[in-house]
Amino acid sequence: MKLEVPGFVAGAVAAGIKKDGKKDLGMICSEVPACAAGVFTTNKIQAAPVLLGKERIKSGHCQAIVVNSGNANACTGKRGIEDAEAVSRAAATTLGIPEELVMVASTGVIGLHLDLNSIEAAMPGLAGHLNAAGLNDVAEAIMTTDTFPKTVSKEGHVVEKIFTIAAVAKGAGMIHPDMATMLCFVCTDIAAEPHFLRRVLNGAVQKSFNAITVDGDTSTNDTVLLLANGLSGLHLKEASIAAAFQSALDEVLFTLALQIVKDGEGATKQVSVCIEGASDEGDARRVAYTVANSPLVKTALFGEDANWGRIMAAIGRAGVPVNPETIDISFGNVYVVKDGQGCGKEAEGDAAAVLKTDHFTITVSLKMGSGTATVHTCDLSTDYVRINAAYRS
Amino acid sequence: MKLEVPGFVAGAVAAGIKKDGKKDLGMICSEVPACAAGVFTTNKIQAAPVLLGKERIKSGHCQAIVVNSGNANACTGKRGIEDAEAVSRAAATTLGIPEELVMVASTGVIGLHLDLNSIEAAMPGLAGHLNAAGLNDVAEAIMTTDTFPKTVSKEGHVVEKIFTIAAVAKGAGMIHPDMATMLCFVCTDIAAEPHFLRRVLNGAVQKSFNAITVDGDTSTNDTVLLLANGLSGLHLKEASIAAAFQSALDEVLFTLALQIVKDGEGATKQVSVCIEGASDEGDARRVAYTVANSPLVKTALFGEDANWGRIMAAIGRAGVPVNPETIDISFGNVYVVKDGQGCGKEAEGDAAAVLKTDHFTITVSLKMGSGTATVHTCDLSTDYVRINAAYRS
Repeated sequence: MKLEVPGFVAGAVAAGIKKDGKKDLGMICSEVPACAAGVFTTNKIQAAPVLLGKERIKSGHCQAIVVNSGNANACTGKRGIEDAEAVSRAAATTLGIPEELVMVASTGVIGLHLDLNSIEAAMPGLAGHLNAAGLNDVAEAIMTTDTFPKTVSKEGHVVEKIFTIAAVAKGAGMIHPDMATMLCFVCTDIAAEPHFLRRVLNGAVQKSFNAITVDGDTSTNDTVLLLANGLSGLHLKEASIAAAFQSALDEVLFTLALQIVKDGEGATKQVSVCIEGASDEGDARRVAYTVANSPLVKTALFGEDANWGRIMAAIGRAGVPVNPETIDISFGNVYVVKDGQGCGKEAEGDAAAVLKTDHFTITVSLKMGSGTATVHTCDLSTDYVRINAAYRS
Repeated sequence: MKLEVPGFVAGAVAAGIKKDGKKDLGMICSEVPACAAGVFTTNKIQAAPVLLGKERIKSGHCQAIVVNSGNANACTGKRGIEDAEAVSRAAATTLGIPEELVMVASTGVIGLHLDLNSIEAAMPGLAGHLNAAGLNDVAEAIMTTDTFPKTVSKEGHVVEKIFTIAAVAKGAGMIHPDMATMLCFVCTDIAAEPHFLRRVLNGAVQKSFNAITVDGDTSTNDTVLLLANGLSGLHLKEASIAAAFQSALDEVLFTLALQIVKDGEGATKQVSVCIEGASDEGDARRVAYTVANSPLVKTALFGEDANWGRIMAAIGRAGVPVNPETIDISFGNVYVVKDGQGCGKEAEGDAAAVLKTDHFTITVSLKMGSGTATVHTCDLSTDYVRINAAYRS
């Protein structure tokens, strides 16, 4: 399906922010002012564009997004805020729209001031590049350590009308996703009130990006923006439309979340950690995150070793009540632990075959209650260390 | 200084538990029943020797410790407990002491039953090997991924008498120390009441092993045992002796803790993370642990990159109040951040020289209050991943 939404144009250029001359400045623009909702990092250290964006999104309206890679504009003080405002002003002037309707986002190295001259000089060319299929260029322009652009689109059909959602995302630092910038921009032609759009977006983020991220652990720049320009004529105030849209948006964000996991820095495998039978959902999430973030579990996954002892140890330190004697663990359909004890060499041999695949599920059954949770993660490879030891060089 | 304490003998043999034929079964024995205190893992999944040891230490007395490497005897159910008891019984019989005075400890792979026959067969030979300098052999026998044995001894002089402390430890999985077994056995000839000995040991552990470990994050087997046989004639009930002993024990355990950090799996650097000016000590500890455990910070240390943006991001997600505008960060004596903003390329160049050394301090000043805390950690290298991807193979 095409990455296009009626009434939206987008594009990207190389403004010279990235050293390698690749695309680094993107823009998304709606023909008409759109209803808008955003979700931002909960990190206490917030980048200038996040601080600015959180203020502007309060109006519930937005018409254009400008995003740069190569420089996070984080830890840049008052000048950082002024730079972010200057970028939005340049975009507003070029597009002929009110500055308050422009949102900015940045990703890249922390602690450097933006090269405003380059960005302002590139703005007219960028505006001239905007086209209906331009979201593909934006997806490319926001890549940092990402190895592929992340895009998805979806149509929904309600009462003989069609709505469309198209979205782009970036993010590839999945070992501790909190530290890697996660950006996501979603365009749709649904009509909505801001407060309702916020609720729909929060619901979808909870089930997608927050299922690959430890709660409250976010980078200085994480931003998810949803722009709804209403051109489909379908309005979220109708329950059947709201239900169809929520379902479509859930799917769109979940698809992007899995693309981010798949592109985890140095990752060779995508692994879903499913916890069943916890006392409640909160406990299930804590256990899932503890297992999914354990470096020793992740290195064993990289080594294709059914080392369930490390999973047991992670379960035991998650800080929730467990009974060691009732825990089952399986890789795919292969049980390696039943009631807290290993199932033997043969089972581990069968599990090793599962571990050799590039996408599988680890299921842990605690038999304490009915709480369940799933977290999606990847393995920890030597390449992860290489990538992150050399990132700024 | 010699690794000997009056009234203690020790030794180790190769009982065939480790595949490579190295020493894997050690014993420490006091001539007379000793006063004893222990600190054990807080992991909910506890190995059989830990479950047994926690019961036995309640008496406050112990005469011998038997420890094996190569097999953790964890997640081994009721048979695991029976096996641990059988090991203690074999040792007690061989030594001619009550079984209740024997403590057992294990480290190694999780989920395998002990090979009791090998251990029982090796016991008479082990007892025959015991000698005053044998703690060196015990230090060797408890190594798993450790690259060097960890030992320390110290004398204290009070009222013209001398007390001696000698200790051995193992542990090398420092990325998340919680998952790596940490064992430490301390022998001394001080005299003490059990309840007071416990307090002294807890105090020393807090300032040493708990300053390299995330609170509450421990392996299935972590065990610290302190045996005090009283032969020095110095008793902890006298305040001056207690003070001298606490100080000596603090130093002994801190030395071992630093040895463990230095031997962090794949580590190339030992880094102290010092947080100043937090609202209180608890906040300082949370920030210190968050920075010290961040894979992105640790890989930057490996890459010798003064990437302070990752330190800022870690500070911001530690879950404590901080003011981004008042944060200073220095590597050694070189400031790279003042009041939340970078000090420029030249400062980073100077910091790079600090990063090339193999032991340095990162100091973060939050300027919120008077809380301070220091955590000792190491870098995250490609070798860490290699070691842990292949550990069981």
